[in-house]
Amino acid sequence: CLFTTSSNMAKSKFEYVRNFETDDTCLRNCYIVVRLDGRNFHKFTEQHKFAKPNDNRALGLMSRSARSVMEELEDIVIAYGQSDEFSFVFKRTSTWFKRRASKLMTHVASQFSSSYVFYWKEFFGEDQPLLYPPSFDGRVVLYPSNRNLKDYLSWRQADCHVNNLYNTVFWTLVQKGGLTTAQAEERLKGTLAADKNEILFSEFNINYNTEPAVLKKGTTLIWEKLPNAEEKEVAVTRSRRRVQAHHCDVIGEQFWEEHPDILEDDNC
Amino acid sequence: CLFTTSSNMAKSKFEYVRNFETDDTCLRNCYIVVRLDGRNFHKFTEQHKFAKPNDNRALGLMSRSARSVMEELEDIVIAYGQSDEFSFVFKRTSTWFKRRASKLMTHVASQFSSSYVFYWKEFFGEDQPLLYPPSFDGRVVLYPSNRNLKDYLSWRQADCHVNNLYNTVFWTLVQKGGLTTAQAEERLKGTLAADKNEILFSEFNINYNTEPAVLKKGTTLIWEKLPNAEEKEVAVTRSRRRVQAHHCDVIGEQFWEEHPDILEDDNC
Amino acid sequence: CLFTTSSNMAKSKFEYVRNFETDDTCLRNCYIVVRLDGRNFHKFTEQHKFAKPNDNRALGLMSRSARSVMEELEDIVIAYGQSDEFSFVFKRTSTWFKRRASKLMTHVASQFSSSYVFYWKEFFGEDQPLLYPPSFDGRVVLYPSNRNLKDYLSWRQADCHVNNLYNTVFWTLVQKGGLTTAQAEERLKGTLAADKNEILFSEFNINYNTEPAVLKKGTTLIWEKLPNAEEKEVAVTRSRRRVQAHHCDVIGEQFWEEHPDILEDDNC
Amino acid sequence: CLFTTSSNMAKSKFEYVRNFETDDTCLRNCYIVVRLDGRNFHKFTEQHKFAKPNDNRALGLMSRSARSVMEELEDIVIAYGQSDEFSFVFKRTSTWFKRRASKLMTHVASQFSSSYVFYWKEFFGEDQPLLYPPSFDGRVVLYPSNRNLKDYLSWRQADCHVNNLYNTVFWTLVQKGGLTTAQAEERLKGTLAADKNEILFSEFNINYNTEPAVLKKGTTLIWEKLPNAEEKEVAVTRSRRRVQAHHCDVIGEQFWEEHPDILEDDNC
Repeated sequence: CLFTTSSNMAKSKFEYVRNFETDDTCLRNCYIVVRLDGRNFHKFTEQHKFAKPNDNRALGLMSRSARSVMEELEDIVIAYGQSDEFSFVFKRTSTWFKRRASKLMTHVASQFSSSYVFYWKEFFGEDQPLLYPPSFDGRVVLYPSNRNLKDYLSWRQADCHVNNLYNTVFWTLVQKGGLTTAQAEERLKGTLAADKNEILFSEFNINYNTEPAVLKKGTTLIWEKLPNAEEKEVAVTRSRRRVQAHHCDVIGEQFWEEHPDILEDDNC
Repeated sequence: CLFTTSSNMAKSKFEYVRNFETDDTCLRNCYIVVRLDGRNFHKFTEQHKFAKPNDNRALGLMSRSARSVMEELEDIVIAYGQSDEFSFVFKRTSTWFKRRASKLMTHVASQFSSSYVFYWKEFFGEDQPLLYPPSFDGRVVLYPSNRNLKDYLSWRQADCHVNNLYNTVFWTLVQKGGLTTAQAEERLKGTLAADKNEILFSEFNINYNTEPAVLKKGTTLIWEKLPNAEEKEVAVTRSRRRVQAHHCDVIGEQFWEEHPDILEDDNC
Repeated sequence: CLFTTSSNMAKSKFEYVRNFETDDTCLRNCYIVVRLDGRNFHKFTEQHKFAKPNDNRALGLMSRSARSVMEELEDIVIAYGQSDEFSFVFKRTSTWFKRRASKLMTHVASQFSSSYVFYWKEFFGEDQPLLYPPSFDGRVVLYPSNRNLKDYLSWRQADCHVNNLYNTVFWTLVQKGGLTTAQAEERLKGTLAADKNEILFSEFNINYNTEPAVLKKGTTLIWEKLPNAEEKEVAVTRSRRRVQAHHCDVIGEQFWEEHPDILEDDNC
Repeated sequence: CLFTTSSNMAKSKFEYVRNFETDDTCLRNCYIVVRLDGRNFHKFTEQHKFAKPNDNRALGLMSRSARSVMEELEDIVIAYGQSDEFSFVFKRTSTWFKRRASKLMTHVASQFSSSYVFYWKEFFGEDQPLLYPPSFDGRVVLYPSNRNLKDYLSWRQADCHVNNLYNTVFWTLVQKGGLTTAQAEERLKGTLAADKNEILFSEFNINYNTEPAVLKKGTTLIWEKLPNAEEKEVAVTRSRRRVQAHHCDVIGEQFWEEHPDILEDDNC
């Protein structure tokens, strides 16, 4: 009894340590981007026998996990993913988690990671069991203007394009051209995009432009209003929408003109 | 071709957005604590029929996931968990991830969450399937001195004790005493630790002091050197240790005297 | 000799302490506002016999010191002051001091404070010597959009107006109405702006709207191009401008329409 | 009237901009060091004809300004200065300004700068008027342990020594040896401390070790209890102490053993 009383007192005696927490509130009126990247995914893809250069099961699982993040967390207006990375954009006026950076990024990282394991079998079936729990690291970046945010997404999509073109030629040279990986690397040194397209077309009769959009453009997730949502049912509005995947260009203006509700005005 | 060339150029044009990332390096010579807390675990425990007041399967899964974190990340010298929370302490001189707070906390949150799903079946078997991917949020706190760090761990263990005593009495009143949860809450209003011990002992013949240590003290994970590690095998030293769980008091000095290697000297 | 050699070595041995400095770079593409406030200026104004409710010498000295800040630091596009405070706005694309918050705010605070003492005699003459060195504290706030920045300046100007109206009535009641300060405070409790205007007009025949603009609107400093600057003299452009003081409304759009070059576009 | 009412309302409408301020509280239980450095002091010393290599008037003014900072701000336990820089150390448990970094550093920078101008004439007399207001920039660095803090001060004192020895030889070569500054620079390239001592001694008969301590060691300011302070007069304790200047070694342990009250224990 003596012990438990003192333990009670002890708790208040130790509580001063709470004051060592520091505030990491994100600046208001900025888009909050959380980007996740796979940790040691080179090894992970080897051990789980991912197809080269792209594994559709893996890309599907990434998107499924990202959808889970969008459905569980509030205020994510758009997400973009490619390869083993995914970016989530919180609307600039969001007050979710009081805009605390640490909470936002750990929650995203946690939900994504648990979903990745949870849905693994749905995409990889019984043939390829998950051998160990994978992990992702994350970061938070703030963007003050619509221009900055669009440029961020454009940067990731341009990165997707550059990498996918390279990987497509590289693995075609290896898988169909019979080159070793070292030879393929040597062959591609210094080549421009046009050169790579030419190799694909003239040597392997592959037109890169007709490759699947999911590979060339990555995956963009946005909210779509369900058509049968009736105006009067205000209370259930939140569930009257669903996450929709697109594999289109986000660098040009067309996408943004077709979806004017994703971004809020700069003049706010 | 035109397209791909411009896409290449586009990437460099957009790359300025990288400069919006801000540095979040943790202050040197401070212990870095990452604490995870279950999100909406009240609902999660209901839906997965956790035993009340404590579910040993769930506590085992928490420890297993924490061990996975310690084994995957470098420089965690001690971890402490209770209920649906776990704290991980990086040594004060760690340079892991260049001490970047965002990387450290998202990696911990991710590894823990994926492990929680991965090892679920090992603890809950086939009877209780995992219904949806759970999530945890995290935070980073820095402690400049050994005293501060010990007080942090003491605070969490005192919290464990206070909560566990309350929950033990509360659920005993409900499960064995036939009270409703509202009645049990009313009964306990304003009671001290001594009163709660007395209720358990005089009404239910339960001696709280003999309850399992894992419930009263939580779980402390530290590294233990394997006895057969030979001095000369320097190269494999890192693997010559394993995570060991303790359920002992960390508030007093005895634990720290018995394990003098966990903390580094303040005078560094 | 031994000593000096070891001292040389000592320096490099101690240099690790530099790594404890943390980065405080301001988020890109945001306006950086540094606001200074007088420390203990209530006491300072008493001891230096400032006229009530406004001392024109003191307001002139504040503006002169602010001008000195604008002339010495780069990239300040507008400054606004009232009473014992002054705000300085760095342009959103500024790279001055690599956008390091600590450098920006200490330099502003330092230049302003040394100027305040340096120019004191120019405004207070020989009659009122400076009795001791005054001080100001500062802070940095970031604003991501033009709307936010204008609202910040509007907030300070609205504050100027509200305080000046109150102080004008308060000191008129005391100086001309013969009330004690306690009586004047009591008289004004709960009064609205309209009530205060009415007291001034009906009891003291003062029309608040004709009070000097410097008191009602504060002081706005902006850069003005000198008319005789010739286009070809690119090299000397920087000196071909001077700080110009305005005492006009900055809440409405007119000021911003008349000076379209102060702010940069949101779409950058 | 309409105007003033709307201005009142305007203020509350704009007040949301306050929420853009971010918290910059310094981590608890760390020493807070604010260091000031003269801005463009090379030019400033030229224009004000400072004696080379050291100007005693200028060093005296720096110390006088630093004393003014210690007397006006709370919780500075030690300050160290050399050349055109001064460091101020707040005690690790200080709650002054709620430990807000921006307030601490701007207040130090402001008080120091206004004092520098205020006391100029006391040191430079009528012969050398102050031509324009000088400025200093500042930064904040946190140190978690006594070892780190001592090493910081040692680093600055080692820097003082290294620079002063160089400057002493350099200006002796120029002023007494008749070398141009370019020749002196060339002569000293690659020399060690021992070489510099030798040049001074063998060529100019100067024993560096007997140079004034203020130049070799810089200036350390600490609080000294006044001897006539009576124990019972608790209320006036704060004024019963004064700032005392030392020019002694702070790298070794002797200084700290002689003044055991400057630092607080690490175990707090």
